[in-house]
Formats: sequence, C-alpha cells, structure tokens
Amino acid sequence: MAGLFISFEGIDGVGKSTQADRLGEWLTSKGKEVLRTLEPGGTDLGQEIRNILLHRKGDVAPRAEALLYAADRAHHVATKIRPALNAGKTVITDRYLDSSVAYQGAGRALDANLVRDLSLFAVENLLPNLTVLLDLDAAAALERRSKTGTEPDRLEREKLEFFEAVRDQYLKLAAAEPNRWLVVDARLDVDEIAQIIRDRVSTLLV
Amino acid sequence: MAGLFISFEGIDGVGKSTQADRLGEWLTSKGKEVLRTLEPGGTDLGQEIRNILLHRKGDVAPRAEALLYAADRAHHVATKIRPALNAGKTVITDRYLDSSVAYQGAGRALDANLVRDLSLFAVENLLPNLTVLLDLDAAAALERRSKTGTEPDRLEREKLEFFEAVRDQYLKLAAAEPNRWLVVDARLDVDEIAQIIRDRVSTLLV
Repeated sequence: MAGLFISFEGIDGVGKSTQADRLGEWLTSKGKEVLRTLEPGGTDLGQEIRNILLHRKGDVAPRAEALLYAADRAHHVATKIRPALNAGKTVITDRYLDSSVAYQGAGRALDANLVRDLSLFAVENLLPNLTVLLDLDAAAALERRSKTGTEPDRLEREKLEFFEAVRDQYLKLAAAEPNRWLVVDARLDVDEIAQIIRDRVSTLLV
Repeated sequence: MAGLFISFEGIDGVGKSTQADRLGEWLTSKGKEVLRTLEPGGTDLGQEIRNILLHRKGDVAPRAEALLYAADRAHHVATKIRPALNAGKTVITDRYLDSSVAYQGAGRALDANLVRDLSLFAVENLLPNLTVLLDLDAAAALERRSKTGTEPDRLEREKLEFFEAVRDQYLKLAAAEPNRWLVVDARLDVDEIAQIIRDRVSTLLV
C-alpha cells in the first residue's frame, strides 16, 4: 500500500472535522495528494443507506443496522479509500471502523468483537496507519455541541452516560493498540492539538 | 424454538414458489398456522435495500452487496421469521441463506465460507429444520423461464454456465448436510414433488 491512511475518532463535539481539515491542509502544503473523506455516508451508496437508516418510521433490527453500516464502509473502502491509497495518496477520514466498535461496545446491543470482525470483513482487514483519538469527557463535548449553559434534563443525562461509555470504549481500543493510536486531550488549544498531530504524522512520512 | 422452519432453494425456474405455496396450503389444511415469506425483500426494509441494489447506475462493491443482502436477511429473521417461530407457527420461505452461499460460491467474487459466516451472524445461527432443493439443470430451468424454443445466444450461454455452477454449489451444500436437505428432481410432476415434500415434512411434525 503506497499511501498513508489516517482516521480521526472521538465522540461528537471534540473537533474531529476541524483537525482532519487542518492536517489535510498541512499535508497538501507539504506537496502530498490528500483525500479527505468521512463515514458514514462517504459515497453515494453510503448516502442512500444513511437515508434508509435516518428516515424510516419503524425500528431496524440491531444486526441489520450493523450490517448496513458495514455495507457503507465496504463500498467506501473499495471505491474511494483503497484506490486513493494505491495511487499513493494520503487518506484522512473523519470516523472509520473504530466508531462502530466504540458505539456498539457502549450500546451493548451487539458484542464489540462481532462488530469489529464484521468491519474487518467489510474492509478486507484494512486498518489505518494512524488513528487520532480526540479525547474529551462527554459533558464538555455536549456543551461544545449545544453551546448553552442550561442544566441537562433526564434524557440529556442518559445521553451523557452513553457518550461517556463510548469515550471509555475508545480509550480501551487505544490502549489495546498503542502503535496505531494517538490519544490527544481535546481540551488543548486547537493549534496545539494540530501541532501534536503533525509531529506524530511527520514520523510516518517517508 | 416452537415452530418448524422450512426453506426452498434452487435456481430460478425450478418451481420453488409453487411448491412453497402447495406445502403451505397443505399444512394450513392440517390446522397449522403458516407464515409464507421470501428473500430477498421479505420486509419493508428489505424492499428498500432491494431498490438500492436494483436501481443504481454505478456498481456496488462485492462486499457491500453481500452485506446489504445480509442486512435484509437479518431484519427478515429478527422481525418476521423468529417471532413467528417463537409463536409456534410454521415458517416457509422461498430462498434463505443457502441462496447467498450458492450464488456467491458460483460467482467467486467472494469466498463461499465468508458468505456463510456473514449470513450466520445476520441470523444469529438460525438454520431451517428442512431445506428443500428443487434440482434441475440450468438449460431446462432457463427454458421454463423463457418458454421459447430459440437457440441461446452468447450471453445466454454464459448465464447457463453460471446457473449450472450455482446448481453444483447447491448439490454440494445438500451433500454436506444431508439431515437438513431434501433434494427433489424438479423434472417430476408437480403433484409428485408436492407429495415427496409432504412425506418428508410429515416426519418432522409432532
């Protein structure tokens, strides 16, 4: 595989999109060809799958939902990510398979190992060279998203507990594969985070 | 599992739908509650997935396609088949997971064992009590479907080779699990086939 593959992970509100953009701009300025993409919905097929999941009235069975996300990922890798890597490009994606593992592991509808195996099948075992976890506690992330100072109600507290569980899952995944993951404290200044990421990526550039 | 689960398999044109209906009517006449269903597209979610697969202009990556069929199957089992079995009903489906294994095994885009594992994940290992294979050579099946006496052109000959390979895969699957499969010669008279199937199903009724 000629190109470098980097994914950004973390709960909503931690700044993944901003940092993925910043890294992409920096690599472009260094003369690299960059594909900046995202999951879910990184392809037209993925968008159609998203539409099914978001706009249905009835429930989707947990395994059916996991399989639909895996289908989105399989198509994303086969038609965008792998061709770009084979062409020597750097691929930066906002979310990849660790999102499924962390969210499912926290939700407990499905075993996290099954979800991982399913994603590995979908992507033919393609793992990123580097996965950046932007780590932040769920309350702070929620505050960034909502930008209001009101007290959380019962539903919001339940959401907080869920997102805190997702955060824990991410930290466990990072601890299990320290060579692949870079964990960055998302409370740091945006420029400081960007520099920490650039320093690590520099070690991977040939 | 209280109810009996029966699937019909075989290439198009062998009479699966007719025999599934006949068996359903017979079981109903014996006082059984019967759910008669089909794959793919046995649920509303399945129909939406089918629409994606049938009406897209671009290609779908082979793994994405396999995952979409598995998602259809997962939802079908979770929302229709398993609830019916748990309620003591007899479930008769026109196609189930062996279709995916036989067609993928013949197409060779994916390893048949991977396809089987994926389907088993989707259905939480739910296999039929009985799978009826209506066996017919591909040329005869094609003739039944088209009902014309014209010579096959190049494309039709390629199709014939593919469907003959699917038939071989079905026969291998049946040979590997003789207790689950009943192989019936689809050249026999419709009533004769129905009787052979009823005889076998009778041994499974309590």
